[in-house]
Amino acid sequence: MSIETQIIEIAAAAKAASGIMAAVPRKQKDTALMIMADLLETRAEQIKSENQKDVAAARENGLSSAMIDRLTITDKTIVAMAEGLKFVAGLDDPVGTLSDSSIRPNGLEIARMRIPLGVIGIIYESRPNVTVDAAGLCLKAGNAVILRGGSEALYSNLALAQVIAQGLADAGLPDAAAQVIPVRDREAVNILLKQEALVDLIIPRGGEGLIRHVVAHSSIPVLKHYKGVCHGYVDDTADLDMAVEISVNAKAQRPGVCNAMETLLVHEKIADDFLPKLHRAMTQAGVTLKGCEACCRMLENIQPATDEDWAAEYLDLILAVRVVPDMDGAMGHIAAYGSNHTEAIITTDYDRARRFVREVDASLVIVNASTRFNDGGELGLGAEIGISTSKLHAYGPMGIRELTTTKFVAWGAGQIRT
Amino acid sequence: MSIETQIIEIAAAAKAASGIMAAVPRKQKDTALMIMADLLETRAEQIKSENQKDVAAARENGLSSAMIDRLTITDKTIVAMAEGLKFVAGLDDPVGTLSDSSIRPNGLEIARMRIPLGVIGIIYESRPNVTVDAAGLCLKAGNAVILRGGSEALYSNLALAQVIAQGLADAGLPDAAAQVIPVRDREAVNILLKQEALVDLIIPRGGEGLIRHVVAHSSIPVLKHYKGVCHGYVDDTADLDMAVEISVNAKAQRPGVCNAMETLLVHEKIADDFLPKLHRAMTQAGVTLKGCEACCRMLENIQPATDEDWAAEYLDLILAVRVVPDMDGAMGHIAAYGSNHTEAIITTDYDRARRFVREVDASLVIVNASTRFNDGGELGLGAEIGISTSKLHAYGPMGIRELTTTKFVAWGAGQIRT
Repeated sequence: MSIETQIIEIAAAAKAASGIMAAVPRKQKDTALMIMADLLETRAEQIKSENQKDVAAARENGLSSAMIDRLTITDKTIVAMAEGLKFVAGLDDPVGTLSDSSIRPNGLEIARMRIPLGVIGIIYESRPNVTVDAAGLCLKAGNAVILRGGSEALYSNLALAQVIAQGLADAGLPDAAAQVIPVRDREAVNILLKQEALVDLIIPRGGEGLIRHVVAHSSIPVLKHYKGVCHGYVDDTADLDMAVEISVNAKAQRPGVCNAMETLLVHEKIADDFLPKLHRAMTQAGVTLKGCEACCRMLENIQPATDEDWAAEYLDLILAVRVVPDMDGAMGHIAAYGSNHTEAIITTDYDRARRFVREVDASLVIVNASTRFNDGGELGLGAEIGISTSKLHAYGPMGIRELTTTKFVAWGAGQIRT
Repeated sequence: MSIETQIIEIAAAAKAASGIMAAVPRKQKDTALMIMADLLETRAEQIKSENQKDVAAARENGLSSAMIDRLTITDKTIVAMAEGLKFVAGLDDPVGTLSDSSIRPNGLEIARMRIPLGVIGIIYESRPNVTVDAAGLCLKAGNAVILRGGSEALYSNLALAQVIAQGLADAGLPDAAAQVIPVRDREAVNILLKQEALVDLIIPRGGEGLIRHVVAHSSIPVLKHYKGVCHGYVDDTADLDMAVEISVNAKAQRPGVCNAMETLLVHEKIADDFLPKLHRAMTQAGVTLKGCEACCRMLENIQPATDEDWAAEYLDLILAVRVVPDMDGAMGHIAAYGSNHTEAIITTDYDRARRFVREVDASLVIVNASTRFNDGGELGLGAEIGISTSKLHAYGPMGIRELTTTKFVAWGAGQIRT
């Protein structure tokens, strides 16, 4: 069987399964997730031994230790996957809920009903836990899911796929509702991306290269996020101690993630006062500053920032700092260099807080708190499947609700149109 | 200047204008729309004379009288466009409104704020009124819009574009917020469809050929609707007089539109009773029936339907009729031949009404009323810019709200993540 035939068969089976999943009651979906959670733990040894095949091959092929680390399934990974499934089982099911109800002058009762999207394709890199995490959320939202992880994780992903399929089958659900593509060839991805009649949405998870490849080749809608170049802006009315504390948290609490702050913009009126405090606190947190000309005049021993620094997603203990004449200067900088991810203002001024929130174009705009809060869990969505920085359908963290859509429903008593 | 340079300049100017439009207060947008409405009427003669150039060329080129009819701007068209703009000015502005507010355990206050999508490209055929109708809705929602109508309507569209630009300028808004592409070459469309860094959404309006071309060539998300193969299902528990009245309305009230019914499915238990009544009423309304084998046995003088009839969007006074064993048979037929547009059930049974509404996959599912209600105005959205039959972002009629999205906003008091 050619790869193309194989992918089309998988997608067609997913499409058929999605029709069944859409009408399944919550309890059946939750039961499937709970069975999968149990199976992960009872089959832990088998899963780890399949994973060791991938890890051994990765070592042979000279993959970096960071990549091998991401690839490795430990007992802790298994517990985390199982807990994640149980958590998703406990979340409310949005499917079938009504909103925006109205009654028309002719008596027709209108509402929007939440429904699954249909078939979702997830394309990701070497972390095998994505297989379970993404499947759990997609299935809970009533979708079918096609999973395509990195080829270096194929044994691991197939072992996890067996657990998922068993959970579905034991709960009386079609096992084609969650399928791992059992093909290493990269061509499989490109073929999947052309099945717009069978697949409703593609979510790529991974580095910018993967995402650009998916966007360039997909004829299916893609929900994506390229990078997080997140800013803080310290207004001249800010509480400076709060500004230091938030800045250190935004930069250093977990520097390797997309909602970490990369550039701090400082109002010139308080730069004299604020920058030495910031410098001390950042140095203590192990953060190196790279500053604009004004910063370099005010602080000793900091590197000058170039235009490249303003655009950089360091994902590291480095912070670019720029003095700006006012909030408009900060907003102009953000419009030029931001990535529509997360933007924070520290201020005590009512009008500026309002204007910043309304006018800055980012998936989360936040006042007097850390950029690190742009996360599905922190914003109250429960679990998340990624963060969208493009605007159509979802902008920001995507939870269960973002894996659904709404249709219109109407109840009549014989109404006709005149 | 090459066409490519020209299109990129237009798109870049639209992008810049969209940043301004996003923050404009409602009053200024409404003022612009009201000025445009006035200008349409004061410049009516000039607009009609530009339109006559297009009409004369269309005649010379031997375009069909239906096409020339769609192309022609009359006094009535002008009044309708002006009234449309005034109506949109009166609609609520969704931009900046908050929803889904919650307070997190750490005190962070979260909400979603509605914001414009950014730059919207509208690609349409020969009706010049789309220029004004689409621009009005996109601008009211705070977007910039790029309009690309049929090349046979270029003089008309440029005259209307002047009115729109003047209205924007007189209200103190950037005239680049609404631009008509002044190029006849079809290459202009293909270039526009590749500007994914500058354009956020493409909405094609027109025949299936246009839409398939746009989908195949766009690297920008597309909201589309191919066709409306809408069904009615008459349950054995239906009020048969109501079923006849709704069926005649759904088929014959305006047969040439996408929400007209194309196939009627009839429960076999009541077919004997119902079909002769239906046949009489449809004949009186000028509708020809094409029936399944069972229909042809029960009714005299009707044509047999083939598999092609079940898939047909007649847009004409023709109705395909099929007897089905039960509601599952009807739902199976709809799943196989429907186009995710509008599906109606006529029933008095509680469980079947519920199941049909929940399980049928269409942008509107309606009980005991005509399919003709799938329309933005009828469903209470105010004006509409089209009907989406794909699920991402919008499913069903798209009003102002569907031309916006939401971002997350959060108000804190110094919260950091631990």
